[in-house]
Amino acid sequence: MLTYDFTKATGALYKYLYKCIKEDINSGKLGKNEKMPSKRTLAKNLGISTITVENAYDQLIGEGYMYAITKKGYYVSDISGIMEIAIPEKLTESEEKLPDIKKDIYDFSSNYTEPDNFPFSVWTKLMRENMAEKKQELLKDLSNRGVLLLREAIANYLLSFRGMNVKPSQIVVGAGTEYLYELLIKLLGKDKIYCMENPGYKKITQIYKSNDIECRYANMDENGVSVEELALSGADIAHISPTHHFPTGITMPVSRRYEILAWANKKEGRYIIEDDYDSEFRLNGRPVPPLQSIDACGKVIYMNTFSKSLTPTIRISYMVLPKHLSDEFNEKLSFYSCTVSTFEQYTLAEFIKRGYFEKHINRMRLYYVRKRHSVLEHINECFDKNECRIIENDSGLHFILELETDLRDKDLEDKLSDRHIRLQALTDFYQMSDMEDKHRFILNYSSLDMERLDEALHVIKAVMHGNPCSRIRK
Amino acid sequence: MLTYDFTKATGALYKYLYKCIKEDINSGKLGKNEKMPSKRTLAKNLGISTITVENAYDQLIGEGYMYAITKKGYYVSDISGIMEIAIPEKLTESEEKLPDIKKDIYDFSSNYTEPDNFPFSVWTKLMRENMAEKKQELLKDLSNRGVLLLREAIANYLLSFRGMNVKPSQIVVGAGTEYLYELLIKLLGKDKIYCMENPGYKKITQIYKSNDIECRYANMDENGVSVEELALSGADIAHISPTHHFPTGITMPVSRRYEILAWANKKEGRYIIEDDYDSEFRLNGRPVPPLQSIDACGKVIYMNTFSKSLTPTIRISYMVLPKHLSDEFNEKLSFYSCTVSTFEQYTLAEFIKRGYFEKHINRMRLYYVRKRHSVLEHINECFDKNECRIIENDSGLHFILELETDLRDKDLEDKLSDRHIRLQALTDFYQMSDMEDKHRFILNYSSLDMERLDEALHVIKAVMHGNPCSRIRK
Repeated sequence: MLTYDFTKATGALYKYLYKCIKEDINSGKLGKNEKMPSKRTLAKNLGISTITVENAYDQLIGEGYMYAITKKGYYVSDISGIMEIAIPEKLTESEEKLPDIKKDIYDFSSNYTEPDNFPFSVWTKLMRENMAEKKQELLKDLSNRGVLLLREAIANYLLSFRGMNVKPSQIVVGAGTEYLYELLIKLLGKDKIYCMENPGYKKITQIYKSNDIECRYANMDENGVSVEELALSGADIAHISPTHHFPTGITMPVSRRYEILAWANKKEGRYIIEDDYDSEFRLNGRPVPPLQSIDACGKVIYMNTFSKSLTPTIRISYMVLPKHLSDEFNEKLSFYSCTVSTFEQYTLAEFIKRGYFEKHINRMRLYYVRKRHSVLEHINECFDKNECRIIENDSGLHFILELETDLRDKDLEDKLSDRHIRLQALTDFYQMSDMEDKHRFILNYSSLDMERLDEALHVIKAVMHGNPCSRIRK
Repeated sequence: MLTYDFTKATGALYKYLYKCIKEDINSGKLGKNEKMPSKRTLAKNLGISTITVENAYDQLIGEGYMYAITKKGYYVSDISGIMEIAIPEKLTESEEKLPDIKKDIYDFSSNYTEPDNFPFSVWTKLMRENMAEKKQELLKDLSNRGVLLLREAIANYLLSFRGMNVKPSQIVVGAGTEYLYELLIKLLGKDKIYCMENPGYKKITQIYKSNDIECRYANMDENGVSVEELALSGADIAHISPTHHFPTGITMPVSRRYEILAWANKKEGRYIIEDDYDSEFRLNGRPVPPLQSIDACGKVIYMNTFSKSLTPTIRISYMVLPKHLSDEFNEKLSFYSCTVSTFEQYTLAEFIKRGYFEKHINRMRLYYVRKRHSVLEHINECFDKNECRIIENDSGLHFILELETDLRDKDLEDKLSDRHIRLQALTDFYQMSDMEDKHRFILNYSSLDMERLDEALHVIKAVMHGNPCSRIRK
């Protein structure tokens, strides 16, 4: 009979017993398939309670050191090859640095939301209210297309501000447009050929390609993507941003919109993905009607995001499916859970429903108009008329700066990067690798630090003239 | 020269002018390619400011009704086929019903978190603190694998509670395990063959299949998935849940764990996905060491979720990649944005870091032990010994109820469903369609309404004996 010295036991008795038996199994003292005493017998023998033995046995069985045969008893497992798991010291340091907030880089290449521009206090208020009043919904609502309250709020918003008449059931909410692209690929089928705008946002292509999708390109002209090239590409799906093309900023006129709808209608299975990513910040005039709103044949899949209007870090986007695709989505993909937390879905729903979103957008629009104006003034002061040209389109959070320089686009980018300035050339957004230099650069202005703008512009000016000494202060 | 009657104008002048010109273009009064007056001329003629004309022209150009030729002027576009967009009434009613919280169904088939069991007050507190103190991070931290603070907190948690020594850089945070499966498919390659446990959680297969992955199955024996069948399946990847298999509840013993690691080591490109989905709720003894912690060759991809430990509606899961796969992930997939909001990532990070998670788990473990005990008592009171048998495994939030009945599994499910009771047969989780009836049913107890449990059990008892009249009170 097994005997252990319980005077040495520290901590819970069952853990001590577990440890002793495990050691005996590991050392071979207790051999493979050896019968163990019954719980009651061992307890009696060791002068401990049956519960203690039971707990130790449970643990040993759970970890595979022992096994039980009903009505027969307990046996030692075959543990050949087992090794002890050494529990290492607590992690004290991480090998990674804290997230690079890019404080030391002057970045013209990205937009984020500045702390003063996110509605933190309202957001906190709504979040708290929901956590107090909507506990059941927050914990149980697993609607796969997103919570109904949010989809209703979005539908009403689209009706009021984009003239789109859509039902909440056509809307699918997801954690970022990237994720929605992937759902769409599954919905439309992997055999489809996608056509992207050239130049364009390269990440879209990366995502399609990482899903083994065949990608083609159609060039942009002054009215947006060329429908002729689109037709020649042989594509089934056109992925475009007609309201505000990135990076050119072109807004597709209505006539071209009808041409592209006509293209989609010519053949079954053709669709247009309308990426309306920053339509809220069309700064002049009334917004252009989206393709979706003039599509009578269910050919347009509309996509939008709260990345530009709230913050990219919140990861909430949505798409509007034509009725028949929406039905197909329910059939084929309803087993996918919605990827956005209900906590934030309900908060955003209230944010839109109670008019805070509209107020926020209006405030931001005003802010961006002023900021844009101010950035343009700084550029005009810094550069002479013949040194640079601004290609401004009416909408969105960026414009294009054409620089009078002999430097190659890539060289200018690199030299600026050495000087802690990130400026991206338009040519980076073309699909051809042997692209001719255009000396045009994208200027995202929404999150520029105005205090350091002059300095950054002067460095650009010096570098474009081949002066290597200037450098931005870190 | 164009003339409009501005005495009728309501609202902004430019909008009125825009509307007038658009009407004239639509009616054909202004023809295709007709030259428009310059802004200055039209302004002078109408007695309005140039800015007003400019705004109206901008809008018309933006919408495609007009186009500009540099140094020549403004022209009317070809708008053949254009149609007016009617802005419909505000949506007042939705065609969908409010989310079905399933109040009227007594559901043994799912687990959710009950409102009293979610740490709302701490969560609100941490969320508010972050929104006050971490504004910059919340709006700018776009780390693609998830925010570092959360990954560090997870790494420390895994070290303390699962004996796993992993670096934060090996962790990838995502919006639900489903999403992480999809990332893994991209990382490991679509040509890989996946093997799932039979019986098993069918959604996993659905997800793999919707990604065009070849799926095979290996049967479970009393120690978990059969390694022999796994080897015979020809699969490259084994997707298993060794700590607590769903639905059988089996915990894989250490000896089997080594066998499966040996299988993975026999051939390059083989991996094990260890789905540790409810290891926090192993209710007896110390937790079993995860496969990941005894894997010396980088063959195990560990997955876990906060769905069981917090709530499924929060959509936060994570995986731990072996070092070389982690490097490959950075190379191949770092362009994907993290799908979880920074707001919730930072909140969860603080929740874990400050010890709240541990306390919460301990509290829930105690709660579930008691609840499980109470549910078992009710079953024992309601049923005679020869009417049902409980197959309990030590861990997790469900057990199995074997009923002594002549009814076929499907029939019993249907009859109960007619009586507003959802109970799922074990046979539903098998891959074969011609499965023999087992009269075994899954009993998820974590969110059962105890007040109505007796009633529900009596309905089950009556139905299994062929009594058709009993029905649960709605």
